[in-house]
Formats: sequence, C-alpha cells, structure tokens
Amino acid sequence: MKAVARDESLPTRVRIHEVGPRDGLQNEKAIVPAEVKAEFIHRLADAGLTTIEATSFVHPAWIPQLADAERLFPMLDDLHDRRLPVLVPNERGLDRALALGAREVAVFASATESFAQANLNRSVEESLRMFAPVVAHAVVERVPVRGYVSMCFGDPWEGEVPVGRVVAVARRLIELGVSELSLGDTIGVATPGQVTALLTALNEAGVPTERIAVHFHDTYGQALANTLTALRHGVTTVDASAGGLGGCPYAKSATGNLATEDLLWMLDGLGIETGVDLDRLTAASVWLAGYLGRPSPSRTVRALTPDPTDSHEE
Amino acid sequence: MKAVARDESLPTRVRIHEVGPRDGLQNEKAIVPAEVKAEFIHRLADAGLTTIEATSFVHPAWIPQLADAERLFPMLDDLHDRRLPVLVPNERGLDRALALGAREVAVFASATESFAQANLNRSVEESLRMFAPVVAHAVVERVPVRGYVSMCFGDPWEGEVPVGRVVAVARRLIELGVSELSLGDTIGVATPGQVTALLTALNEAGVPTERIAVHFHDTYGQALANTLTALRHGVTTVDASAGGLGGCPYAKSATGNLATEDLLWMLDGLGIETGVDLDRLTAASVWLAGYLGRPSPSRTVRALTPDPTDSHEE
Repeated sequence: MKAVARDESLPTRVRIHEVGPRDGLQNEKAIVPAEVKAEFIHRLADAGLTTIEATSFVHPAWIPQLADAERLFPMLDDLHDRRLPVLVPNERGLDRALALGAREVAVFASATESFAQANLNRSVEESLRMFAPVVAHAVVERVPVRGYVSMCFGDPWEGEVPVGRVVAVARRLIELGVSELSLGDTIGVATPGQVTALLTALNEAGVPTERIAVHFHDTYGQALANTLTALRHGVTTVDASAGGLGGCPYAKSATGNLATEDLLWMLDGLGIETGVDLDRLTAASVWLAGYLGRPSPSRTVRALTPDPTDSHEE
Repeated sequence: MKAVARDESLPTRVRIHEVGPRDGLQNEKAIVPAEVKAEFIHRLADAGLTTIEATSFVHPAWIPQLADAERLFPMLDDLHDRRLPVLVPNERGLDRALALGAREVAVFASATESFAQANLNRSVEESLRMFAPVVAHAVVERVPVRGYVSMCFGDPWEGEVPVGRVVAVARRLIELGVSELSLGDTIGVATPGQVTALLTALNEAGVPTERIAVHFHDTYGQALANTLTALRHGVTTVDASAGGLGGCPYAKSATGNLATEDLLWMLDGLGIETGVDLDRLTAASVWLAGYLGRPSPSRTVRALTPDPTDSHEE
C-alpha cells in the first residue's frame, strides 16, 4: 500500500547514521544492561542499518547509561561489515576505544559557549584544543573521526546561534582532521530557512556538502521538514534514533531525536534507497520499547504497531 | 529566542484554516458541551486565527460530538470579522446552516470508492450528484463552498490512490462551483513526492494553485514535510488542528491532524505571516486539553508547556 513518488531534486541514496544505542539510550532514564543493548544493536543491523553508533567511552561516572562500553563493544565483534562508531570525549577515551578495536570514533563539540561549559566544562576553544590530539591520534591510526557540532541553530541560554559561530567551529574541526561533521539541532528549534542558510554558509566557507551530516531533534515537530530541506541541499547522511529513543512522549524535556522509522517512511516514499527494512526496524524498536516499558514516541512505529489498549478502536 | 530565516521560494503569507473545533472534536472520544466549544473558538479567534471551521450540520445522530451545531453556531455571532465555515452533508444540512446565518460552507467528497461507501454510504459519483444542488444553492446565496477531497494519497482499503482519480473528483467539484479544494491525506501516509505530483497534475488539469488547500495528517509524522512541499509549490492555505485535536498521542488509531502549533512554529521560523500568536494559540489548546483531561499530542505545545509531572526534570 506504500506509494513511491520520486522527487528528482533529492538524492537517490541516503545513509542513515543510527544514534539510538548511544544518543538515544544516553538520554533515557533507564539503564539498559549490555546484553540488551547488544541484542538491540544486532537487531538494528539485521534491519539493514549500516552505521550504528554503539556507545561512548566517556568516564563511566559521567553517563551511567553508557558505563558498560568496555563490556558492550566486544559483544559486537561479529558485526564486521558494519560501521560502529563510538564517542570519545578525550585521549583516554580514544585509548580505551582503540584498545577494543574501534574503527570509527566521534568527538562532540559545541557551537555555543554556554553549552560547551554545561556539557564539557570548558570553553569552545578549550574543548577544540582538547580534541586536537584525539583527532590527530585517530588519523594516525587511520580511524575516521566524526565531529559533532551541537546547538547549531538555537541554544537554551543564548537563543539564536549566529551562522558564523557554527561555521567557525566546523572549520576548526575540519582543520583538526575530522572526516565528517554532524550538525546538531540539539533543542529542536530550527526551521527550514535556517538549515539552508547554514548549509550554504558552510559551502561558502569551503566545507563540501559530502562531508556534512544533519542531526535534527523533533522537540517542536520540525525534524523531518528540516531533514527534507537538507536533502534538497544535497546532504546524504542523516542521523536518526530507532523508535525515537531518547525522546519521551510524555515529558516536556524530551530531547526528541528524529525517529529512524519516521525518516524511513519519508525516504521509502520518495524512492530514496537506504538498505533498511522498515518492518524489521520497527520490530526492533518495539522490542526495546517493551524492555523500557513505555511506547515508542515515533509516530510511524505507533501507526504500524497493533495496540491492544487502544480505546479508540472500540 | 526564535530565529527567523526566510526561504525566498516560499510564500510570504499563509492562511491557516483551523479545523480543530470541527474535524478535531469530531474525532475525539469526549463529547464537549457547546459552551466549552464556543469558549474554545473565541480563544482561537483571540489568538489571531481568521478561519475557524466551527461545526458540522450533519444529522445529529450521525456524529454525537457535533450534534449541538444549532446551539453552538449562534454563540459565535460576535465573531463577525472571522470566517466560520461549517460542514454541510446535504441540502437539509445547508438549509439548517443558512437559517442560522452561516456565510461559508464545506462539502466532504472522497477520492476513493471504498471511503465514499464507508463514510457517505454511496459511490463517489452518487455523492457528487448529492452535492450538486447543495453547491448550486450555496452559490445562489453567495455563500462560498469549500470542497474536501479525502483519501487523496492512500486509502486503507485500496492502497495507493491514482493521481487521476483525485484530479477527476477535484475537477468535478470545481465544475459544481466550489471555490476552494482541500486535499486530504486522511490516513497520513503521503510523502513529499506524492504531494508535488498531485499538485502538478491538478495544475495541468486547469485547477490553479490559488484554489487549493492542503490537509495533512501526522499519523506517520509526515504532515509538516508534506506541508513544506506544498508551500514550495505555491499553496498558501493550510489546514491544521489546534493542539493536534483529533489525534490521540497514545492510540494507534489516532487520526493525527497536523497540529496548528507545529505548523505555526515552522511558519514563524520561516518569516511567513499568518497573523496568529503562538503563545495565545498554545494557551487555548492547553486550556482545552485540560477540559479533555489529556495532554496535547502537539510537540510544540508540549515543548512550550511546563509539565509538573515531568519525571525527566528531576
């Protein structure tokens, strides 16, 4: 019953960078055991996802949800043919990741001083200086580094974020040696005109679109419209979180990652290839939602999943 | 803190056709008293909405939620400067609406035979023949008629809906004398390529974009991306439901009207004028949600509203 209608101004293929196991579970209240995470990641891989951000090698005390990185990562050894990037906050984290055989890593920068202080406890400049040897070391090891830039559009303390600030941080990360940038709308406030403005400014500053991924949050319901706008600009790597993990359907403070299923419904409908099977992906999200004991906030997951408690069916 | 970034390929002004009091409340389980509806509509008008679909003059036994149309409509007499269209299913309904002074009406056609049978208990052709004298009578009275076309993209029984079927029904409605078409994605399955294809086909069939409104449901999270696509095509009238009324955040069967607040967040961010104040609109939706006893499914409403039960804030 799913109709396919191409739009020739959009790319023919998109790579989904699945962030559910890391960005999603990091922002869930529940602490999920490593065995459950490993099973979830295998189910995501079985659904066809080629890039699954697996965990973060932060100090275990910082993020209890991801404190089991050393136990989890070896459980994924059989996923040779997948990209399993891991977040590394500093050199110590990179050493731990490399010791376990990680072949892709990511660093997490901020476009704003307020969030750099809140999240990294240092200024933007200090955090970039901290990342310099991390990226350099990874490059020597031929391990590609993704550079996240958070708060690219709005910041809860500073309001609107000037495009020039994002461009400056993006250029510094590229100069350090990151192979891909992920532009984050961490509080989900962006609208399509801002997306086009930032992507255009980055191109003008010499950052090619091929090195840019987008990472939208659905806090204000804008994530898919913004993603469509980025695709129209030529972006072909999109971050999303299976089942909308990390966003609570009932809580105001939902971080609200774009749900991979909502993204995939659009991409499938547009005839854009991803290699991901929606039914298997939905089944994986429903399985994890059962473990978490709450429904997925993804509209597509809810629409595709029979709900025995649905009082409107009576 | 809200950033504004124009996109020159989009219109400078959009008229929101607010459907919450009719399409929204018709699909809510609760039966809301006329006094509460009247207060809600006044609050929506105070927020700046210029077009508010007030109710439906169907037989009271068909839709108990809207059985109070005769009581409700006179309570809106002071809203002289607003457009308050009402749905009329047949000549009897039109007579009732005209007797109360309605100055705009709407008829509700289907692009598919299955939904025409299920919803109107007659074929597409029989329903169009039923509407012919209704539209003719309204035109004589100088009362503009909006023609809804439901199931324009997908149908739960028939699957994908051929563009030609929608075009045929749309042309018939225009020939009957409707002044505006509202293209409905009643089950929320459409993706942007389908939107462009249908709008293009309608233009080629002689239906100008100025006479087309779009009516998307957010069942699969696609409503805003589809709306953006329609705006890019030149559409300037968009249907939406305050607070996402008519869509239940917990139920699979959510009809999932696009929430007016989610739409307005995007339009405000794009610098597109609507005349609507987001804070006042959100307050109206929160007020009604309090009456209904459940939170709004609108992501923007949830993001803007303090939630004392938000366990993630601890």
